[in-house]
Amino acid sequence: MARVRIIALCCVQLVLIKAGIAQTSIKETAHGVFKISSGANEKFTPEIFREEKSNVSGLQQLPKGTLPFDVSEIEVNIDDRGCKIAIPLGDGEQLYGFGLQIGSFNQNGMRKMPIVNDYPLNNLGYTHAPLPYYVSNKGYAILVNTSRYTTFYCGNNQAKGTKKKEDNAPAETKLTVEELYQTKVSGRNNVLVDIKGAQGIEMYVFAGPDMITAIQRYNLFAGGGALPALWGMGIKYRVKADFKQADVLNTVNYFKEKRIPVNVIGLEPRWQTAAYPCSFVWDKEFFPNPKDMISKLKAKGLQMNLWEHAFVSNKSPLYEQLYNRSGDFMAFHGLVPDFADKSTRDIFAKHHKDSLLNMGITGFKMDECDNSDITRGDARWSFPEMTKFPSGINGEQMHQLFGVLYQKAIYNMFKEANQRTYLDVRASNAFASPYPAALYSDTYDHKSYIEMIANSGFSGLLWSPEVRESNSFKELVMRSQTAVLSAQALFNSWYLQYPPWLQFDRGKNNNGELRKDKEANENIIRKLFEFRMSLVPYLYTAFYQYQSKGIPPFRALIVDYPNDENLFKVADEYMIGENLLAAPFSGNAETRKVYLPEGVWYNFNTHEKLTGGKEYLIKFKYDELPLFVKEGTILPLAKPVEFADSNTKFDINCYVFGAPKNKSYLFEDDGDTYNYLKGNYNIVELMAENGKIKVKRNGKFNLKRFNIVNTTYIK
Amino acid sequence: MARVRIIALCCVQLVLIKAGIAQTSIKETAHGVFKISSGANEKFTPEIFREEKSNVSGLQQLPKGTLPFDVSEIEVNIDDRGCKIAIPLGDGEQLYGFGLQIGSFNQNGMRKMPIVNDYPLNNLGYTHAPLPYYVSNKGYAILVNTSRYTTFYCGNNQAKGTKKKEDNAPAETKLTVEELYQTKVSGRNNVLVDIKGAQGIEMYVFAGPDMITAIQRYNLFAGGGALPALWGMGIKYRVKADFKQADVLNTVNYFKEKRIPVNVIGLEPRWQTAAYPCSFVWDKEFFPNPKDMISKLKAKGLQMNLWEHAFVSNKSPLYEQLYNRSGDFMAFHGLVPDFADKSTRDIFAKHHKDSLLNMGITGFKMDECDNSDITRGDARWSFPEMTKFPSGINGEQMHQLFGVLYQKAIYNMFKEANQRTYLDVRASNAFASPYPAALYSDTYDHKSYIEMIANSGFSGLLWSPEVRESNSFKELVMRSQTAVLSAQALFNSWYLQYPPWLQFDRGKNNNGELRKDKEANENIIRKLFEFRMSLVPYLYTAFYQYQSKGIPPFRALIVDYPNDENLFKVADEYMIGENLLAAPFSGNAETRKVYLPEGVWYNFNTHEKLTGGKEYLIKFKYDELPLFVKEGTILPLAKPVEFADSNTKFDINCYVFGAPKNKSYLFEDDGDTYNYLKGNYNIVELMAENGKIKVKRNGKFNLKRFNIVNTTYIK
Repeated sequence: MARVRIIALCCVQLVLIKAGIAQTSIKETAHGVFKISSGANEKFTPEIFREEKSNVSGLQQLPKGTLPFDVSEIEVNIDDRGCKIAIPLGDGEQLYGFGLQIGSFNQNGMRKMPIVNDYPLNNLGYTHAPLPYYVSNKGYAILVNTSRYTTFYCGNNQAKGTKKKEDNAPAETKLTVEELYQTKVSGRNNVLVDIKGAQGIEMYVFAGPDMITAIQRYNLFAGGGALPALWGMGIKYRVKADFKQADVLNTVNYFKEKRIPVNVIGLEPRWQTAAYPCSFVWDKEFFPNPKDMISKLKAKGLQMNLWEHAFVSNKSPLYEQLYNRSGDFMAFHGLVPDFADKSTRDIFAKHHKDSLLNMGITGFKMDECDNSDITRGDARWSFPEMTKFPSGINGEQMHQLFGVLYQKAIYNMFKEANQRTYLDVRASNAFASPYPAALYSDTYDHKSYIEMIANSGFSGLLWSPEVRESNSFKELVMRSQTAVLSAQALFNSWYLQYPPWLQFDRGKNNNGELRKDKEANENIIRKLFEFRMSLVPYLYTAFYQYQSKGIPPFRALIVDYPNDENLFKVADEYMIGENLLAAPFSGNAETRKVYLPEGVWYNFNTHEKLTGGKEYLIKFKYDELPLFVKEGTILPLAKPVEFADSNTKFDINCYVFGAPKNKSYLFEDDGDTYNYLKGNYNIVELMAENGKIKVKRNGKFNLKRFNIVNTTYIK
Repeated sequence: MARVRIIALCCVQLVLIKAGIAQTSIKETAHGVFKISSGANEKFTPEIFREEKSNVSGLQQLPKGTLPFDVSEIEVNIDDRGCKIAIPLGDGEQLYGFGLQIGSFNQNGMRKMPIVNDYPLNNLGYTHAPLPYYVSNKGYAILVNTSRYTTFYCGNNQAKGTKKKEDNAPAETKLTVEELYQTKVSGRNNVLVDIKGAQGIEMYVFAGPDMITAIQRYNLFAGGGALPALWGMGIKYRVKADFKQADVLNTVNYFKEKRIPVNVIGLEPRWQTAAYPCSFVWDKEFFPNPKDMISKLKAKGLQMNLWEHAFVSNKSPLYEQLYNRSGDFMAFHGLVPDFADKSTRDIFAKHHKDSLLNMGITGFKMDECDNSDITRGDARWSFPEMTKFPSGINGEQMHQLFGVLYQKAIYNMFKEANQRTYLDVRASNAFASPYPAALYSDTYDHKSYIEMIANSGFSGLLWSPEVRESNSFKELVMRSQTAVLSAQALFNSWYLQYPPWLQFDRGKNNNGELRKDKEANENIIRKLFEFRMSLVPYLYTAFYQYQSKGIPPFRALIVDYPNDENLFKVADEYMIGENLLAAPFSGNAETRKVYLPEGVWYNFNTHEKLTGGKEYLIKFKYDELPLFVKEGTILPLAKPVEFADSNTKFDINCYVFGAPKNKSYLFEDDGDTYNYLKGNYNIVELMAENGKIKVKRNGKFNLKRFNIVNTTYIK
């Protein structure tokens, strides 16, 4: 065992301290990013598989990093069981993160074990995106760079004191469970990190000065946030699993006929000759001419996305190539490709490129990469943790990283083809910020879905609270509102014959028993979808802020207002971009309370002016989005289009809420390539001057996508 | 990495095979018990802490051990991640065990991780008693002798085949979740065992020829099953947490006045000066004269049991003594004694002996030893897994073993005082069969509680499905019936002012709003309790069979009928002793189906003769126990007494169901010492001859506890 006290050196310098078996160093590896290393290097860390280099210039634009503690206070211990780390935790400090947590938000006092999984009941920490990472409202984030299962004790541990009779025991006898739960832990506290099996550890400390800057540093260090294709801002609709080519085209015709803005059509397993496991080959019986179908969709402005998972059927042309490049156990009877090996990712990607991307497919849904069903105890659904892979990564590490490595394989293919995309994926991990991939889940609790939007922003993740069936039209609308106000507006009808707004009941839907009020319902849904399309310019710009500055487009309020105690546990409201606050309805609520942070706000629908720092009651309305706007905002809303692609032009109405305090911006580029990274874009600056909006376009992109046609002042 | 193929040598002989870093041996360590060792020895295994030596003579009386596979087919691999084992699994073989599983019974195809925990939602395998152990209906049991967290994949894994295009993938595309779950795994199968962190492993194979013999071998190898004190067969009633001495005596007076047979009174935390954590010292304000109270109870035939947990308050006289003998983290602000160290257990026990046992306390309830609340994520309730202990055991191992080590400390004290007991405990593990301690739980799902009775018998465990409040009197009665038909009939009123049959609603109970029909209800409950007291001689003898032959007194039907496919998943019926089948009601059922195995059975209540191999419908009745009796049984039922202790004599009515096929037996000893182990007991043999029962008493115990007064023939 080696107990190591880290010597802080806040400069780019490497220091090694020998202490027993472990050597520990600390360096400022990037502006405000401190890397601590101790003991033997691990071969398979999230960092090693980073897709992008750090955005150094973005990091340089952030203020000097500060921390509420001295990095030297972090203690690392290594023994034959593994590594443990003790990180200082201040009194009253609030912790968040650990990836896409479901069912928990404020993590203080919790014992968290972020392990990849599809069905995270309870608060073990199981999640689709198990990041060994947390962020504090005191303005820093911690990432333990490991793919091993890691446990975090967030401050309720009680180290034995040095004094033998110190008074750290509660004075009275507790007679109820309630009393016991109220017991506070006294004395100096830490976050404890337990990494079983590791003989060395790296960790990153992302400095503040504040919470959002720490998160920005994390995202920029990962290479910057994702900027999906412009079409990804629209609505994605996945059709029923057994649809044939004609069914798909009929569905598209329905959308067009009814002017329902849908931007992407997703196919489910049956497009392939085999699934599960997958062949990655079109089934010509169901889809006789996929190229023709894709062209027809493109002509109507729609993209096509294909479902798959990575487990390779012996009916796939990839089988022979990947046989020796896969684990010694299978999943769903399919090969598990060793995605930790670049050549394996390349083979996998090449098949996708040659036979799917080249045909016009612009996105994939990457399912089942999250060790499905381990919490239901069924061993069929994935590979065991003892699985060995040719690269040397073990099964546990592979499980934790499988989602990011799968993203890496597919994203890289698109990037090399200079084609932007927007993917669906069931698992992710650290340093995934640059992947344009939205997580989704089978868990279907609406309240949790909203909370996951708030949680996603801490950890460089995107989350799509997909809509399927509902118990009532009201519930369907609430879910649809949340979807419209999320990073990806996804309707997943993989087991529904008709869109859910025509019949929200699954059984009746599939029996063709459509609602009598279906046209009224259709009108409401269309209005919500149209709002989404109005929001595209604002949203797309928020994503550009994510890419270039690391600011999460969707984030909990605590990120922007880290010292507001009333927000410590608010998980059902969140910010969209710089100036919008969303507060979706869930359950069967007619009304809900909305807490507005300090400052002055406007109700987006009623235009009522509201003073922050308190709660307001709002009423549910079918065709209104529960939104609030910060005073001083110039909000650019587009005239709704039926789809967005690289040719789309938007007519913009600028809504000015109160006296405009700041400029607003819009990001203008081709929308579907990486040319913006070579400077081929404009920043459209909007200034309110003398009752009208002045537009200034900076950049060399040659299409004026955004055209300001109107301005509305709201006092 | 060393892949080791074990050479089977079915004789007592040690063979070492060098293969890379691992050495592997196999020996028949006891009659029909094969020990396989590979790699480095572990220091802290369940086996090392066994309380009793193997019952060699009991084992010798079992038939020669046979197995459905060759032990040499078991494969062990060791690498730097840990150990993995592959154990052959036959087609159609059914697996059970893994300790006190909640929510699962038949474990085929499951991924199980038996980890100690109080709240085992889902099917991860978390349980109060996390045994790395399973038993097959093909007649063998496997115990992996480890206290590390271990994962078992029970047959649904899919090792990559050797042929590159072998047809192991399902032929068709699956479009529904239902279809996917129906997917069968083809090809050769194994149980895979994954022991992360271990650099060596021991395992035991308990041979058949049949399932019950394998379980008997396991129990006898552990030292034989528990034989609680005779008084433990009666009813245990725990009073409200804030009761004072006078309240306790009042409650006892109520029982006596109403002739409600209660045998043990349990006190909850408030008897101590501090809890949580515990002082283990009487609070004289609440209990001014505990010795007097205990004497008064004893005079009325009642024992006294005290709640505690093992975490030591700084208000305890044990604090100073245990400070350096405890872990470096605390739990509930109390010291965590290093129970892996004998001197620590002895200090802990000595305090209990001097100040509690010597005062007349005859049992303890050992709470919170199960890493409480880890699934709710709250870190306050126990010590972290990274905790270090002076003995060298790590926190993970300590968690797994804490319950058995705690039992060891307390049980040993009683044994040394030559005093039998019956304890309550919240955690256990392997080789715990000899501990007279019934597990209990806060989870309160009645259906699971019944299933846990069936599960307990596979793994050498005793389980008490405690009764607290209810939603209706009917539910209370159903729960009471299950309690009466379990290893310990426990009513836990720790938050109820009055017994639940006077008011089953918690709130009203504590407000003193008793039911108008309380006397009618009391009469029903009395009748159920009286049945329990009638069953004491039969039950006590079943426990003696457990002690001497290893036959679980409560066990799933599959144990006795391992080849009956209809029983593979039957978890809501179980055997009590040799000849009784119980089928408790749960939920709101008016009727339930009962499957009777092959042979002829009698409905205990209606005396109806029933042919086995099919299902029957029975109706719920408040005052009848849902029991069936095997044809040919001589069932000795006692005239109910209000309590049982070492002086109790029982008047017995023998019920003869059909033509008696076998003798019946009763075990007769002093009931509260270990003198029976020195031969001081009788076996009372009951034979039906010419219409009356012939009694033959073998042994040298000088009290005739059982007196046959009547015989009833049921044709």
